[in-house]
Amino acid sequence: MAHIDLDDGIPGLPSLLRFRPETAGPLGALAETLLRGPGPLERGERELIGAYVSELNGCRYCAGTHGACAAAQLPGGTNLVEQVHADPSTAPVSDRLRALLAIAAAVRRGGREVGEAHVAAARAAGATDVEIHDTVLIAAAFCMYNRYVDGLATAVPADPSAYARAAERLVAEGYAPR
Amino acid sequence: MAHIDLDDGIPGLPSLLRFRPETAGPLGALAETLLRGPGPLERGERELIGAYVSELNGCRYCAGTHGACAAAQLPGGTNLVEQVHADPSTAPVSDRLRALLAIAAAVRRGGREVGEAHVAAARAAGATDVEIHDTVLIAAAFCMYNRYVDGLATAVPADPSAYARAAERLVAEGYAPR
Repeated sequence: MAHIDLDDGIPGLPSLLRFRPETAGPLGALAETLLRGPGPLERGERELIGAYVSELNGCRYCAGTHGACAAAQLPGGTNLVEQVHADPSTAPVSDRLRALLAIAAAVRRGGREVGEAHVAAARAAGATDVEIHDTVLIAAAFCMYNRYVDGLATAVPADPSAYARAAERLVAEGYAPR
Repeated sequence: MAHIDLDDGIPGLPSLLRFRPETAGPLGALAETLLRGPGPLERGERELIGAYVSELNGCRYCAGTHGACAAAQLPGGTNLVEQVHADPSTAPVSDRLRALLAIAAAVRRGGREVGEAHVAAARAAGATDVEIHDTVLIAAAFCMYNRYVDGLATAVPADPSAYARAAERLVAEGYAPR
């Protein structure tokens, strides 16, 4: 049961957006900008970074939702997402994305965990300053969304196929509040 | 030196907002809503929660800036902020705020660290669902801002009095992008 009086028929973040519409607007606008706005990282790559951080944080709702969004927008689909969750060092991704995932994992542990070596490896694999910036900010933002969703003990969907349905809608319509 | 090509004359978050104006807008709007928008927690209390989480995360820039914003808006001033940073269990704050600070510290460790006992203690001290919600979201948001600021190794002000000057402007004008 959630820590506060949420609509238990709605899982995860949406239950919080409904509980507090005043904060739903800026949270949705931020997700839309980070995951779908203009930028050098592909939308599927951004979702994969978010899903990976969520998986490391043990946030089932966010890992499920954004893993499904990544799977829907990357050629490797669900298999690729599972391989990244299991071990990004052996998953079939580009060296550039592998280095960015390592930066994301460091950000998850803490901002000061990102070292010169992480950044140098990403640059050597072809990552630009904006890609490094966007990776750090996406990883940091998921450290917020994960804590928000789990810190208030929101529900997870009873039926795991709900994630793929949610992803279909998010890929088509985005995160901006309606 | 920062990990990416930032204007080294500007410290902390503002250097990132200038580097990537596309994400500056939503990040500023979120801070404005969380720290100054309509809600039951006083502005000084919200800044104190943010400063405390930043201190625990070791983020000097955010702890300095938001500590100064809290000090400027709470009767206890700088002394109170230092007492909370040192040990909230003995700091001269209300039992309600003490319980909310304990929730914030749990959120900082991870979303699933917030237990029934934290929430029950806050409720027993008079906290409402919206206050508990806002505390969790503010603490979670600072876990993002702290990681963003430190994950890209932004500069800290050479002169610590810069924090009080920044706070004066933030208290007067807020966080929304101009």
